[in-house]
Amino acid sequence: MYRTHTCGELRLSEVGQSVTLSGWVHKRRDFGGLSFIDLRDRYGITQLAFNEGIDPEMLSKARLQNREFVIQAVGIVVEREKKNTVLDTGEIEISITSLKTLSESKIPPFTIEENTDGGEELRMKYRYLDLRRKRVRDKLLLRNKISMSVRTYLNSNGFADIETPYLIKSTPEGARDFVVPSRVNSGQFYALPQSPQTFKQLLMIGGLDRYYQIVRCFRDEDLRADRQPEFTQIDCEMSFVEQNDILEIFEGLLRHVIRDVHSQELGEIPRMTYDMAMKLYGNDKPDIRFDMTFIEMNSLVKGSNFTVFENAELIVGIKVKGCANYSRKELDILTNFVKRPQLGMSGLIWMKVDDNGTPNSSVNKFFNEDSMKNWMTAFDATKNDLILILAGEKNKTRKALSDLRMHLAEKLKLRNPFEFAPLWIIDFPLLDWDDESKRWVAMHHPFTSPKPQDLSIINEDPGSVRANAYDLVLNGNEIGGGSIRIHEREMQAKMFDLLGFTKEEANEQFGFLMSAFEFGAPPHGGIAFGFDRLVALMGGDEVIRDYIAFPKNNSARDVMIDAPSKISNSQLNDLSIHISNNDVTN
Amino acid sequence: MYRTHTCGELRLSEVGQSVTLSGWVHKRRDFGGLSFIDLRDRYGITQLAFNEGIDPEMLSKARLQNREFVIQAVGIVVEREKKNTVLDTGEIEISITSLKTLSESKIPPFTIEENTDGGEELRMKYRYLDLRRKRVRDKLLLRNKISMSVRTYLNSNGFADIETPYLIKSTPEGARDFVVPSRVNSGQFYALPQSPQTFKQLLMIGGLDRYYQIVRCFRDEDLRADRQPEFTQIDCEMSFVEQNDILEIFEGLLRHVIRDVHSQELGEIPRMTYDMAMKLYGNDKPDIRFDMTFIEMNSLVKGSNFTVFENAELIVGIKVKGCANYSRKELDILTNFVKRPQLGMSGLIWMKVDDNGTPNSSVNKFFNEDSMKNWMTAFDATKNDLILILAGEKNKTRKALSDLRMHLAEKLKLRNPFEFAPLWIIDFPLLDWDDESKRWVAMHHPFTSPKPQDLSIINEDPGSVRANAYDLVLNGNEIGGGSIRIHEREMQAKMFDLLGFTKEEANEQFGFLMSAFEFGAPPHGGIAFGFDRLVALMGGDEVIRDYIAFPKNNSARDVMIDAPSKISNSQLNDLSIHISNNDVTN
Repeated sequence: MYRTHTCGELRLSEVGQSVTLSGWVHKRRDFGGLSFIDLRDRYGITQLAFNEGIDPEMLSKARLQNREFVIQAVGIVVEREKKNTVLDTGEIEISITSLKTLSESKIPPFTIEENTDGGEELRMKYRYLDLRRKRVRDKLLLRNKISMSVRTYLNSNGFADIETPYLIKSTPEGARDFVVPSRVNSGQFYALPQSPQTFKQLLMIGGLDRYYQIVRCFRDEDLRADRQPEFTQIDCEMSFVEQNDILEIFEGLLRHVIRDVHSQELGEIPRMTYDMAMKLYGNDKPDIRFDMTFIEMNSLVKGSNFTVFENAELIVGIKVKGCANYSRKELDILTNFVKRPQLGMSGLIWMKVDDNGTPNSSVNKFFNEDSMKNWMTAFDATKNDLILILAGEKNKTRKALSDLRMHLAEKLKLRNPFEFAPLWIIDFPLLDWDDESKRWVAMHHPFTSPKPQDLSIINEDPGSVRANAYDLVLNGNEIGGGSIRIHEREMQAKMFDLLGFTKEEANEQFGFLMSAFEFGAPPHGGIAFGFDRLVALMGGDEVIRDYIAFPKNNSARDVMIDAPSKISNSQLNDLSIHISNNDVTN
Repeated sequence: MYRTHTCGELRLSEVGQSVTLSGWVHKRRDFGGLSFIDLRDRYGITQLAFNEGIDPEMLSKARLQNREFVIQAVGIVVEREKKNTVLDTGEIEISITSLKTLSESKIPPFTIEENTDGGEELRMKYRYLDLRRKRVRDKLLLRNKISMSVRTYLNSNGFADIETPYLIKSTPEGARDFVVPSRVNSGQFYALPQSPQTFKQLLMIGGLDRYYQIVRCFRDEDLRADRQPEFTQIDCEMSFVEQNDILEIFEGLLRHVIRDVHSQELGEIPRMTYDMAMKLYGNDKPDIRFDMTFIEMNSLVKGSNFTVFENAELIVGIKVKGCANYSRKELDILTNFVKRPQLGMSGLIWMKVDDNGTPNSSVNKFFNEDSMKNWMTAFDATKNDLILILAGEKNKTRKALSDLRMHLAEKLKLRNPFEFAPLWIIDFPLLDWDDESKRWVAMHHPFTSPKPQDLSIINEDPGSVRANAYDLVLNGNEIGGGSIRIHEREMQAKMFDLLGFTKEEANEQFGFLMSAFEFGAPPHGGIAFGFDRLVALMGGDEVIRDYIAFPKNNSARDVMIDAPSKISNSQLNDLSIHISNNDVTN
């Protein structure tokens, strides 16, 4: 037996017991005739004590054990003279009577500490060493905890975990598929799923009623920061439900997880239409932990000599509470923020309310005090408040003000990562116009049903049709999205038609689903959560990479195992494929 | 709201309540002025009643609802006159006041009944209809139940569910990999994992201590019956363990699952060496629900004039209790069984003990009664017992007798699928000689550690070295297998050398693991269970296909979605690959 206890569990109550521990040498400290080893495992750190006066040979042996050696030690639990109040095991130490090196270690390329000296690339290459850091390990353990919490909730609500296939069929709609050449069916390919969407719908048609899966999905995208080619979803589907049924069940899921993980009780999750979110926050995933909602000013400011406002489609502002003391320089920084090419605004207008409640603005010469007092009323602004105003084309202006709002919230430290403020966004548009391909694309996906009351305008004004689609937003991040699905063949065919599929393409790619609709499909709907992001947010982070045991880098490479890599000619021959030489760059 | 209750939950206690149900029309029965619809969902069947005397219009409407239509019905729960004792809801029916067709259905291509008239191919093509059959649905729900039972046990024992990547690196060792061309890294490929073996070992080196995952694995094999290109494993690994620690933990897992699923209490699981299993059962996955262990007869029969025995390496038999009454014809059938080309024995020798305890055999002229009485003693045979004997080359003879033993057990109905008799097989050989490639291959895998006490003979007699490897066998099926791993770079290099890897190959493919061993690798080991098979056995079956929601056929095709299939030239171009025309057969 390698150990009687872990390195995290011994307390004063075990004093006098003989114990065996195994673990890694976290640190060794030598003093005259004394040495101490901090022995580390997943569960904690326990101090091993070696005393020349008691056993000089054991002391010499201890001094051979360097950082990250794996050792096994036998000894007696004793009460420490100097207690360590930071460590759970800090009241005791082990007086060692026997010591064995199980594995030696070279000097690790970076320190195994909370704050390591290792850079990103190095830590990725030696990920197995990075995982030894408590900070990284705790993230994976949190992920496990949330996964089990999600499963417990869903199972207790009648959802069955049903595995869907990973080797499926490629469909050109949406993002690029990863494909898998078939050897047995040569010249043909499987695709890895971007989501189990059609399969979960088939499960509903198959009468399974409530399905879930914590499942890997794959997207061959040009990589952006913090995107992984493989990612994990909590994928769910229910039959015989309307939108409200789904919102209630999954509101319960988030409540359950936050209770399990943070012992916090969530109130009821507010619901907001997409249109309202765009109007109030300029964003379909608003962070509502803080206020600064948009106030539209068109009716307040039109009719002046100020051409910027006169020419603008939208004039809109936010109130920054108590920030009238911002200096010229600070305001210039904010102005430059909105003038960056990504946002492209021509300028930022400000109004300050001074100590006496008198307004003063960067457009004083165009608006008199009475006008500005009207603005104060509209913003509910009082002394020392700052109002920031943008004007321009509607969508662009909203986006810029939304980014400015988030920027200010960061600056003002309004984004406490452990305050959780979820929000449902509902009534999304069904379709989105894609300027590049000059066609309508599905805002959610082609299986989302339009709102029945909007069906009458679907031909003349498809852009105004709303969908039975919803997102769950948490602290400014979309953590889940779903919809009530189409469950009728004709409606599905109509949808493919709107999206520019020919009948043949629709049948070729989704014929199996449209056939299934002809054999008694129940009304159904569902949702999928980005599990990586949910876990990161629960951990107080917005970067997902550290919450994945073996993530890929921004070039979709695993630098530890060196994948992807070349394969042998005999493998290529077996698969009846070869590589186009002119394209080979590596 | 589509329903107030499911079709499985109404009882006498709800009589008088107004309820709304939704589901599929399972059956409609019309009589004069009455009609009944059996309404079905995942949870059960409830009878809807329509009476001309009460509501003639509703009756006409009911008669428009055909098989597999999806309907919503509102009505009052009433006590049935004629109770149905088979259905859980059989004491009540619903007197319908309102009825709505939610989805019509074409006539399904096979009946949605316990015993359907649909053939295998048809049911695969319309898998979503096959899933509506209770028998099939129950298998998926059993799978969900077992999955949750496994997770609960493992989590409560400190195992963390940690997801490992699906896009990894191809290694030519073992079965063929499925590969995934990388677009971003053109000319390079990922591979889909045959198992997360190296990753779970890296997690142990990373200090995660106890890991598990219910994970999809992929093997591009030439398909045999009941093999799937993608399959699911319960994959586990532990640090600071010896073989016995692992056996105890996972014995506990099987005990936990059988308790959860069948409310049966398993006793302690016996352990048997590989050598003993081969000697007693001719098989490394013996079914021990019944006896018929092998008795080796070499010392009993040598020295006669019977050349078959004189020339045989092994003479070995089994006792078939109380079957001395087998006719000549029945014995001929058994003889033909062992003479089939797959087994290739030259014949079968029998001895019967008659009512008076006198032996009589097919080799009477070579052995006198005294000799045969010695055989009776060896077999502990008494009156009416039958002894069947095979002779020949050792391995071939053992295999043939093992198959004969299983054949007889089927015939004698000794294989009760709901009697669970697990068994650990331990002390497997480390290596297996592959006659085709003329080299040693790993019996388990290249990461399995040899028994330390056998290391001295590893160079001169590698075939006799035993491994720290073990299988968990259930009712004649291997359900899990694992080993204590190598955790030292030198030992791992030695192992790759024995398996015929050059140093360069070993480094190219597994350098990351061997490097990891240099930074303090803990002793570790693990096990993986074939989840599909475990679930099938728990369901009383040995065929796994029905326990998979969307299985592939024997040509690795999904005939429902028609995958694999061709992909577009633009996809091929993006991936910088093209198809070798001479090999394209589809």
